[in-house]
Amino acid sequence: MGSGQSTEARVADLLERMTLREKAGQMVGLHVGSFTVLQRETSWTTTLDDAKDAIRDHQVGSATPFGTGFSPYNTAVVAGRVANQLQRVAVNETRLGIPLLVPVDAIHGHAHIEGATVFPHNLAMAATWNPDLAERAARITAVEMAATGANQNYAPTADVAREPRWGRTYETYGESSSLVEAFVAAETRGLQGESLRDPTSVAATVKHYPASSEPTRGEDTAPVDISMGTLRRVFLPPFERAIDEGVAGVMPMYNALGNEPAHSSTFYLTDLLRDRLGFEGVTCSDWLAVWMLVERHQTAASFAEAVEQVATAGLDIASVGGTQHADTLCELVESGDLPESLLDRSVRRILALKFELGLFEDPYVSPRSAIIDVGSEDHRRVSREAARQSVTLLQNDEETLPLGDVDELFVTGPNADSLDNLLGGWTVFDFDENEGPTVRDGLEHVVDDGTTVTYEPGVGSDESAGRDAVASRAERADATVAVLGEPWYLHEFGPASLRGENGGFPQRNSLELPPAQRDLLDAVAATDTPTVLVLVTGRPLVLTDVLDQVDAVVVAFFPGLEGGRAIADVLVGNTNPSGRLPITFPRSMGDFPVRYDWLPHPSPLGMDEHLPSYDPLFEFGFGLSYTEFTYDSLDVSEETIADGGEVTVSVTVTNTGDRAGTETVQLFGEHRHSSVVTPVRELQGFTKVTLSPGETRTVMITLTADDLRVVKPDGSRTLESGAYELFVGDRTQTLAIS
Amino acid sequence: MGSGQSTEARVADLLERMTLREKAGQMVGLHVGSFTVLQRETSWTTTLDDAKDAIRDHQVGSATPFGTGFSPYNTAVVAGRVANQLQRVAVNETRLGIPLLVPVDAIHGHAHIEGATVFPHNLAMAATWNPDLAERAARITAVEMAATGANQNYAPTADVAREPRWGRTYETYGESSSLVEAFVAAETRGLQGESLRDPTSVAATVKHYPASSEPTRGEDTAPVDISMGTLRRVFLPPFERAIDEGVAGVMPMYNALGNEPAHSSTFYLTDLLRDRLGFEGVTCSDWLAVWMLVERHQTAASFAEAVEQVATAGLDIASVGGTQHADTLCELVESGDLPESLLDRSVRRILALKFELGLFEDPYVSPRSAIIDVGSEDHRRVSREAARQSVTLLQNDEETLPLGDVDELFVTGPNADSLDNLLGGWTVFDFDENEGPTVRDGLEHVVDDGTTVTYEPGVGSDESAGRDAVASRAERADATVAVLGEPWYLHEFGPASLRGENGGFPQRNSLELPPAQRDLLDAVAATDTPTVLVLVTGRPLVLTDVLDQVDAVVVAFFPGLEGGRAIADVLVGNTNPSGRLPITFPRSMGDFPVRYDWLPHPSPLGMDEHLPSYDPLFEFGFGLSYTEFTYDSLDVSEETIADGGEVTVSVTVTNTGDRAGTETVQLFGEHRHSSVVTPVRELQGFTKVTLSPGETRTVMITLTADDLRVVKPDGSRTLESGAYELFVGDRTQTLAIS
Repeated sequence: MGSGQSTEARVADLLERMTLREKAGQMVGLHVGSFTVLQRETSWTTTLDDAKDAIRDHQVGSATPFGTGFSPYNTAVVAGRVANQLQRVAVNETRLGIPLLVPVDAIHGHAHIEGATVFPHNLAMAATWNPDLAERAARITAVEMAATGANQNYAPTADVAREPRWGRTYETYGESSSLVEAFVAAETRGLQGESLRDPTSVAATVKHYPASSEPTRGEDTAPVDISMGTLRRVFLPPFERAIDEGVAGVMPMYNALGNEPAHSSTFYLTDLLRDRLGFEGVTCSDWLAVWMLVERHQTAASFAEAVEQVATAGLDIASVGGTQHADTLCELVESGDLPESLLDRSVRRILALKFELGLFEDPYVSPRSAIIDVGSEDHRRVSREAARQSVTLLQNDEETLPLGDVDELFVTGPNADSLDNLLGGWTVFDFDENEGPTVRDGLEHVVDDGTTVTYEPGVGSDESAGRDAVASRAERADATVAVLGEPWYLHEFGPASLRGENGGFPQRNSLELPPAQRDLLDAVAATDTPTVLVLVTGRPLVLTDVLDQVDAVVVAFFPGLEGGRAIADVLVGNTNPSGRLPITFPRSMGDFPVRYDWLPHPSPLGMDEHLPSYDPLFEFGFGLSYTEFTYDSLDVSEETIADGGEVTVSVTVTNTGDRAGTETVQLFGEHRHSSVVTPVRELQGFTKVTLSPGETRTVMITLTADDLRVVKPDGSRTLESGAYELFVGDRTQTLAIS
Repeated sequence: MGSGQSTEARVADLLERMTLREKAGQMVGLHVGSFTVLQRETSWTTTLDDAKDAIRDHQVGSATPFGTGFSPYNTAVVAGRVANQLQRVAVNETRLGIPLLVPVDAIHGHAHIEGATVFPHNLAMAATWNPDLAERAARITAVEMAATGANQNYAPTADVAREPRWGRTYETYGESSSLVEAFVAAETRGLQGESLRDPTSVAATVKHYPASSEPTRGEDTAPVDISMGTLRRVFLPPFERAIDEGVAGVMPMYNALGNEPAHSSTFYLTDLLRDRLGFEGVTCSDWLAVWMLVERHQTAASFAEAVEQVATAGLDIASVGGTQHADTLCELVESGDLPESLLDRSVRRILALKFELGLFEDPYVSPRSAIIDVGSEDHRRVSREAARQSVTLLQNDEETLPLGDVDELFVTGPNADSLDNLLGGWTVFDFDENEGPTVRDGLEHVVDDGTTVTYEPGVGSDESAGRDAVASRAERADATVAVLGEPWYLHEFGPASLRGENGGFPQRNSLELPPAQRDLLDAVAATDTPTVLVLVTGRPLVLTDVLDQVDAVVVAFFPGLEGGRAIADVLVGNTNPSGRLPITFPRSMGDFPVRYDWLPHPSPLGMDEHLPSYDPLFEFGFGLSYTEFTYDSLDVSEETIADGGEVTVSVTVTNTGDRAGTETVQLFGEHRHSSVVTPVRELQGFTKVTLSPGETRTVMITLTADDLRVVKPDGSRTLESGAYELFVGDRTQTLAIS
């Protein structure tokens, strides 16, 4: 049956001809390479020949030669060739010739491939408040993936960052559901393109469903303990938005929600995901998640029981389950413990995706594309633009920035001359092929001819080194730029074998700069030289004791391959900073959780007896510019909004400074009263506007009645009549919901 | 209809004769006194005459002349007379003569009355691991309440302490549901006695339903955001146990659960509480909670809407709702917005309680009882014994304790000579009539004749004072006892007007000793004099940086009127300490939540890449003795347990030291596998055993199949077959669940 037929008909035809073993094979994937670093208990090596055997003999349906830096195939041409070899075995050496899904975690570019375009991490992308950039970056990522034979991306990350102690905060688009929604939608569109059938489109896989980003203690993959109302209000909207955009895949979280692991939950994987949210695509396990049900969650007494649980719950593909998982599925069906219809249900979805991706027509890649597309200058230019828009200015005493006439500029700190630390995790470990400027390089490139840039590392990520040298350099210089923050890391700040020990920093129980970085800062702060603190970090840090020591603070959330240049452009004023915080900077470790959209509540001793519920160092949405903006005339197109309706909110913005600049207009809202407790403010929309000095423009943001629904405790959403307060800058307006 | 009839018949008869206004009156209470301190927005003064008018003209059904220290009637005889006057108006000057409920927050004794017996606070009670003491204390509290005309206690507190930043942690029985359960059951029995009709019995009111003790950020009354599984597994069991014990009342929490305020929730107040848990008694609002729905939760647009919501949800009594609440109820019924049957439902419960309390037979109190019973020496002896058993020894380097031959003993610190701070909150503010020893007094009383006790306050709760004097005293002394910790406070560490400013300590975002107390400790630690740190505190503090400075650490959680003597007895060895921590002492503010019964979970980078999930400074259940105990022969009476069954767990304990002592035998258990994630260990039982030096005894703990049920995500409980691991001390045993 050919490509002229409907996908449904082609799937039905193929499924009917499949044996049990062939079906089971489609439901598992494997990883070609060594997997020894992350989980010592389960280390393995799968050679290319092993993989071919598994495809040939077990009809394994997914295989990836990429992966978390542990693959031997990290160059574009070689990876593409390996992908082609694997597809060839699947197509030519199996009875039914079903092509492979070839997945990869391309979180911020196809960054497991050397020389690929590495974009700012998602938290930095969110700091741009510019989803169009994320869409362009995702499109490029898809093109580079497709050029190396990958056809499925374990992205976008739809997790809403509610717990900065969590080591994966940088993979998120920040703490606001609606900001995350906008970026997840953009990334999904970028990855999947106009049609999955487009040869440069890849299947997006939204993760980590439904709510992995608020693990207990901030401990990676620990249980997430929230009410159904919070799940629906805060965590699910970005997943729902991805589903609306036609996302092909969903990956469950490792975590349990309450005491129920997501991977084995019929409620989450079928009742909620399929029946309520209407998802029709493929669910893919996270790596080793099935094994973890036995050994970690202790919710399955054996591997067979775990396999039975996940198949029943609705998991379609065990990502690195391999032949063991496939064999177990067969045994369970043969013993009568699992109905074959459950396998049919999953295989139908998997085959549909493969048909939709056009893999049955052509699963191969031309190594030429790899050479032309991967890491092209056009692609890197987008990364550079994203990095520039992401850099966020948090403090600028006495207009220390942009750096003016400076004879000697002193650059120091563990992140000043490290490309690795600009990239962050989910990037190949062997960086030799990654060519990009460090912050030091960037500054040397952009300063005037009259400026000398001097450099001392000063400190490793945490070990004190050369404090005297730093002090004397800083003393002599006209300005000091101290580039501090976090190093490269994955998950819970590891693996230590690759990241280095770093004196325990970063870790989850302290977000304060480690002692060695504090020492370095003490050394430069003791001088009279103006000091700029540049933070390269994956999450907000606690800077309370640091702010007084420095004149200016700039933050960049792992800004990618072009981050060094982007930071330099902001420091010297080539770029007027327009980044805004997508996440709150807390005041102390005892204040968590600190979120802009906190819920109001009683205060039995009276409001003035409480510490404020939200009193952070830097608020969500905050960011300075080298110019200033004022707001006027906040207005709504209609006084009243009803179900199905929409209104246009308009506000006039003026650049009152003497420099062109870009303002991020943020619309917040609050229900005056409703049947449930609602946040003191919620982000309801945003838009960026670039204005010349003195220029005034009126910007519009559309608000729909759907945006104003409240989430009831059972998770349903209803529109309730009442007053809705709107806030933009210092302006307020009231909208009536009828 | 007389007392020979069934309560049901008497209620039906009376209800039939009541007007709408009379019904509404029964559903509200009032407070006689001034209420200006806690909520400035809602300050009021109700004079005794006002109260009588309200009872006479509005048939108000509850009235209290007690209350949170703001009542003018704080002596036993006067309070009893006032109560009698109020009852007389209700009985003689209203058409139906319905007597009053007279409630009071007698949290740790009838402590709003001067001279009453003040027991250790609940957290200290829990540290005794001796629920019999709590039952005796509650019995005494009921006797002293009854002697002053109070007939309802807003206790026990069934909150499970999961968030030590919360300012009401000291009111709880600690972090383990089963420990809390045992104490709540004991307190309920003690308050209610054999029968509510007993003139010394009072109605217990379990609070704060269903789960107020894990507010977001530890902020008092902020939303509690947990899954249904956690609610049922952790928070509800103590409430269920109280209901099993026949508790008369339930008080909802101020908080919202998720986004749903408890007071206006039909789900929590009716579906769960009545239909599922089978509660048939009276629900009483927390103070001002109805008003807070409008002004704080913003879930009602007007006071009338709030009244309608709580009546519909199933709230029976608005505790200080007064005539405004009653009038609003009438208006709602008259306008057709509220069916009168809802009022009937509540009034039926209220009248039933009044009949069961015997109030229709005799609501009066004899002032003689007040003189004889309140604060009697017999009563205080129980408080002293509870305090002794509560004191917990956490560190004892080189057997610093008990203090041996000491010529000069130096006592210092803000809690060394303060009775107020031994009592803690929910005690009258004007302490003149409270006579009890401070720690300094206690030590002076118990030391040998040859020992001189010297004293310097050293520091207020936080302001540095007399550091030099402290240093020189400590230098000269043979031992120093520094008594540090927290002052008196309510709720979120206030009111500041009464507690004093204390430099911001205590507060919720830091549990570390404040700078002035650290300075004091630095001063004494700089000497070679052995130093004992005594902490008087309402919750665990972060002592990580302090432990190395001192030789011994003793903790007392607000030990009550006899606490000074009890601490002294432990320090000199008159009492061999047997207290065990009912709550974990964390290592840092970044580690929260730190709980002994954490849920296991995956660790994608491998277990050794994570900080441990539970690595506190002092574990739940920890406590040293002046002797040592060993365990042997952990055994179960049956290898297998089935539904409905029970087994006896036995273990042999030996006192291997040279001093008599009491060991708290703690039985923990863990499901090897189950269908849901279960804690790495759960407290399943405990018992205390006192052993002479060298003595061995076998102790038994009964385990029922019900204890082994797992809580499913929907909150239901099931017994699942599998292995169950038991732990006592260093011994383990496996039980099979069939």
